[in-house]
Amino acid sequence: MNSYSSKLLENAVNELAKLPGIGRKTALRLALHFLKREVSEVEAFGSAVIKLRKEIVYCQECFNISDTEKCEICSNSKRTHDVVCVVETVRDVMAIENTGQYQGIYHVLGGIISPIEGIGPEDLTIESLLKRVKKDNIKELILAMPATIEGDTTNFYLYKRLIDQEVQLTTIARGISIGDELEYTDEVTLGRSILNRTPYEALLSRK
Amino acid sequence: MNSYSSKLLENAVNELAKLPGIGRKTALRLALHFLKREVSEVEAFGSAVIKLRKEIVYCQECFNISDTEKCEICSNSKRTHDVVCVVETVRDVMAIENTGQYQGIYHVLGGIISPIEGIGPEDLTIESLLKRVKKDNIKELILAMPATIEGDTTNFYLYKRLIDQEVQLTTIARGISIGDELEYTDEVTLGRSILNRTPYEALLSRK
Repeated sequence: MNSYSSKLLENAVNELAKLPGIGRKTALRLALHFLKREVSEVEAFGSAVIKLRKEIVYCQECFNISDTEKCEICSNSKRTHDVVCVVETVRDVMAIENTGQYQGIYHVLGGIISPIEGIGPEDLTIESLLKRVKKDNIKELILAMPATIEGDTTNFYLYKRLIDQEVQLTTIARGISIGDELEYTDEVTLGRSILNRTPYEALLSRK
Repeated sequence: MNSYSSKLLENAVNELAKLPGIGRKTALRLALHFLKREVSEVEAFGSAVIKLRKEIVYCQECFNISDTEKCEICSNSKRTHDVVCVVETVRDVMAIENTGQYQGIYHVLGGIISPIEGIGPEDLTIESLLKRVKKDNIKELILAMPATIEGDTTNFYLYKRLIDQEVQLTTIARGISIGDELEYTDEVTLGRSILNRTPYEALLSRK
């Protein structure tokens, strides 16, 4: 598709096609969709996106997305402020919040150590995390990194940097997901889940 | 996902999730993607979409999308102005233009007759088409409707309305399988189907 009859349309399709996962055909479909909607609706759409980018604030404590300098989670006095869950991205915060199982606070690294992609510790909010650990008397850091080589690398880096601190380091449990069949689980996960087996009574008492 | 830590984010996600084929998870991914881009880029995106909707013009002749009152195709004196290809949407114009096989002009109906969806002839640009046929001495109308019941209905309606006119009605060749949309047909098939167009009456007599 290249023969757009309108520069306006071509321009909008070009912009839409820059979005991740959206090719030129989908971009065209979206552009024509906008033409069917009311002007006020399209303006609301465009300004919501621009406003998001221009006015967004990251929490000065945990680097979560926020509308204020201190996010709702860090401002909430009912939460446990000496337990910090360290995550890669804002989406991980949302995912954990949606479980309703966690009452501590967070620290968003803004990425993960990845030598292949050229992302080192200095590109992440690790120094801020180390300062928080000292300043706020944090008792436990839950390392909630993805179960990848990069996740393991980041975990190990944090472990090395915090080895002489009193803070306790834990990681989220690795194991078989709910609904998974044993025979389709990869060997590493299955192996670890046997090594890190849990007393059945402990499981019962949680319910 | 419902616990957005920011109203700005929530608002942008809501707007993105209104787009066809985009669910809340994808909307969140897109919103976070915008946060990674430069402010100027996000402004270019938002304004391209708003500008498209506010400034778009439909050609007064053929109802194709245009930046001017008469589109580039209708303004092009090198094209054959007494052959008009009747299509459902602007996307069909683009699809046929991309074949490079067609030198006539177009008429965009803006939809297709569909009693099920409550779309009648009066909702389409059919009256304008009938006026064009008389006014511009059009010799041939190529009915390039999708190969669906609605497409056949629209073809038959146009045939009935034009039966006492001198204009020749043809349809694009049925190389396209039943149920297929024009825009997803490969260019060779679509191009051939224009070259091998069939007189509409021949089609009727075959049934």
